[in-house]
Amino acid sequence: MSSAPRRPRILIIGAGFGGLTAAQSLAKAPADILLIDRRNYHLFQPLLYQVATAALSPAEIAVPIRAVLRGQENITILMDEAVGIDTKARLVRLRRGSPTPYDHLILATGSAYSYFGHEDWPRFAPGLKSIDDATRIRAQVLRAFEEAETCEDEAARRRLMSFVLVGAGPTGVEMAGALAELAHAALARDFRHIVPKETRILLVEAGPRILASFPDRLSQAALRSLRQMRVEVALDTAIEAIDEKGVIANGKRIAAATVIWCAGVSATPVASWLGVAPGPGGALKVAPDLSVPGCPEIFVIGDAAFITDEKGRRLPGVAPSAKQQGHYVGDLLRRRLTGKPAPPPFRYRDQGQLATIGRARAVADLSWMQLWGFPAWLLWGIVHIYFLIGFRNRVVVFLNWFWAWLTYGRGARLITGERKFDSTGSE
Amino acid sequence: MSSAPRRPRILIIGAGFGGLTAAQSLAKAPADILLIDRRNYHLFQPLLYQVATAALSPAEIAVPIRAVLRGQENITILMDEAVGIDTKARLVRLRRGSPTPYDHLILATGSAYSYFGHEDWPRFAPGLKSIDDATRIRAQVLRAFEEAETCEDEAARRRLMSFVLVGAGPTGVEMAGALAELAHAALARDFRHIVPKETRILLVEAGPRILASFPDRLSQAALRSLRQMRVEVALDTAIEAIDEKGVIANGKRIAAATVIWCAGVSATPVASWLGVAPGPGGALKVAPDLSVPGCPEIFVIGDAAFITDEKGRRLPGVAPSAKQQGHYVGDLLRRRLTGKPAPPPFRYRDQGQLATIGRARAVADLSWMQLWGFPAWLLWGIVHIYFLIGFRNRVVVFLNWFWAWLTYGRGARLITGERKFDSTGSE
Repeated sequence: MSSAPRRPRILIIGAGFGGLTAAQSLAKAPADILLIDRRNYHLFQPLLYQVATAALSPAEIAVPIRAVLRGQENITILMDEAVGIDTKARLVRLRRGSPTPYDHLILATGSAYSYFGHEDWPRFAPGLKSIDDATRIRAQVLRAFEEAETCEDEAARRRLMSFVLVGAGPTGVEMAGALAELAHAALARDFRHIVPKETRILLVEAGPRILASFPDRLSQAALRSLRQMRVEVALDTAIEAIDEKGVIANGKRIAAATVIWCAGVSATPVASWLGVAPGPGGALKVAPDLSVPGCPEIFVIGDAAFITDEKGRRLPGVAPSAKQQGHYVGDLLRRRLTGKPAPPPFRYRDQGQLATIGRARAVADLSWMQLWGFPAWLLWGIVHIYFLIGFRNRVVVFLNWFWAWLTYGRGARLITGERKFDSTGSE
Repeated sequence: MSSAPRRPRILIIGAGFGGLTAAQSLAKAPADILLIDRRNYHLFQPLLYQVATAALSPAEIAVPIRAVLRGQENITILMDEAVGIDTKARLVRLRRGSPTPYDHLILATGSAYSYFGHEDWPRFAPGLKSIDDATRIRAQVLRAFEEAETCEDEAARRRLMSFVLVGAGPTGVEMAGALAELAHAALARDFRHIVPKETRILLVEAGPRILASFPDRLSQAALRSLRQMRVEVALDTAIEAIDEKGVIANGKRIAAATVIWCAGVSATPVASWLGVAPGPGGALKVAPDLSVPGCPEIFVIGDAAFITDEKGRRLPGVAPSAKQQGHYVGDLLRRRLTGKPAPPPFRYRDQGQLATIGRARAVADLSWMQLWGFPAWLLWGIVHIYFLIGFRNRVVVFLNWFWAWLTYGRGARLITGERKFDSTGSE
């Protein structure tokens, strides 16, 4: 609208860890930044399973994107969804608004759960990606207990109290520990007819061990912790079918009212938007500077990108990796726009990995040190509270955890949403 | 199941303020109590508008019923919905479970919004009764701002930023104040293109003044406070139509993307369940001991009951009134079961009324004292935090309020739920 020379326009799609960090790294860049996300909030996804198991409230792990970036003057935020890219005209097509032009484009669109081609499975085995997924799973789990409380038929009651988690990566393991805690401690005192301790929590893994990305010693420690918490772990067990009655695994039917998908993810379809052949898991194989080969003005970061380390292994789909990539691209673009030389190729600094198993147990693989049990859990708590965005959230999350730890209580045990008693099929 | 003489069975329908208090008053009664609610949580309804305006999270004003009554040994809780009563056989019919027998029955089923026979209005003007209503209204309000931010058409933008509240009782007034605060302070810094201060908040009241149940002096004070907060108040204005474009009031069309119903309520259909002619507002006119005339074993309390004070005025539909009635009936039944004489007829002890208008303003009518402005707000805050059930909630709510008060921030500004951009009709 003004007659001043137009500043270059940087378009960022996705306000997860990668996109948000890129936006923040560009705070001082001489550019107009437009950040588009289909949600109005940034989600601290590593703690989403705590919403699904009623330990935390949604607002404790999600902050409005506008609130996070309030102080940054060169940015505009838009709630919309990208549906395609015209690389010739340099336009991103949106679901609601008109096509939006860019000079530089950062695609940080993340991943979705992959059901390996089984299109009917998501209905019976929801994954855990958004706040809505989490509150839906929370309602489903709590409703199963409420229904079991009045169920006269023993087989039906056992089915209601059986929970199958598919996939023993960090999400599956953390979810299993949290569910075991919810059932055996928080709910144990609250029911009269059912015995919540009779809950069956079954973690099914196709591979030979849980937490496959961790060293074997920590996998074993995590397995011991889970078994102490009465979680059944079935290794080398492939899921063959999922339906309203439960699952079929290694040819055997397991009756379960609740099945939660914690297995494969696949990247969002950025490769097809760009007319490029997708790499492993649907991700787009990027150049060493995270740009799209042949399109130096387009970058792909986070779960949507396929990047390997110096040993040729794919980088893990974790928050620190996405944040490092966002920071790298932000820095690269700022240098490019101010005439400075390009930085050296992106290099991932491995900060280790953490997984927690219920109350006061965890495993930590820090490359220079391995921890398990309570010390690992303490580290996990400190790291997660530290990285939760926003001071207010930190205080509330700390209080909630401390209170839950003291009392075994669960504060967010609300069954919300429209579906009523749907697992019995009576409505 | 045991061969001991059967203890009398008291069935309570509804775990709102009335039903929950009745259950708690019966803690030491020699009876088996069954408490049925269609939700798994007790809701602190007076603060529901704070969830709808993103100040509080659902878990801060709702507690699992099982957690509240955990220590009470003579009670069983059931998540189900009553759909009818067979007074001859002394059975309550349920939506899911089999009919349930009772010896004594307490109906505390509350009220629902009444649209005065306009069956199409609820679609366009949701009321505020449950957590799901509140999160839906929250998403609708926040989404209107997000859409306005990118809306190029001025008329459409004005419509998106116009909010009509129908009915200026306590809910309408408190909602108007909270919306004005959200728009003018919390969101003001977060948008680039729209000016949230241009938000139009219109409170429409059919009667000649707001807060009609309060003394005139306090109505005037509340009206001044609202106008200082740039809320438009239209008195003597009847709503003639509500549709997707907005409302027609006094023959004039008002374009508004969001219309919220805060007007009439009607009682749940207990009268028709019992085959009795309903009283005013669908409520059931009870005997002086709150029992149903002709059925001394059935009691109706709270919003479902029609009760007048010594001057013939209907008791207000507020929490203290429902709690006093719950307490009275619990006490009466305990005396009846232990062979003690019946208590004197129920008498309402008026503890006054309170309404808050945004940040640091309120009105308080305490019969022996009237307060307005900041002192009234201070009283309101203390009373509401004190009555919120559960220590943990008190701490979190206090921290949230204190933080919001210091920073003008809003912590729970999340757009959740499945509906996307529905107010534009594009999806």
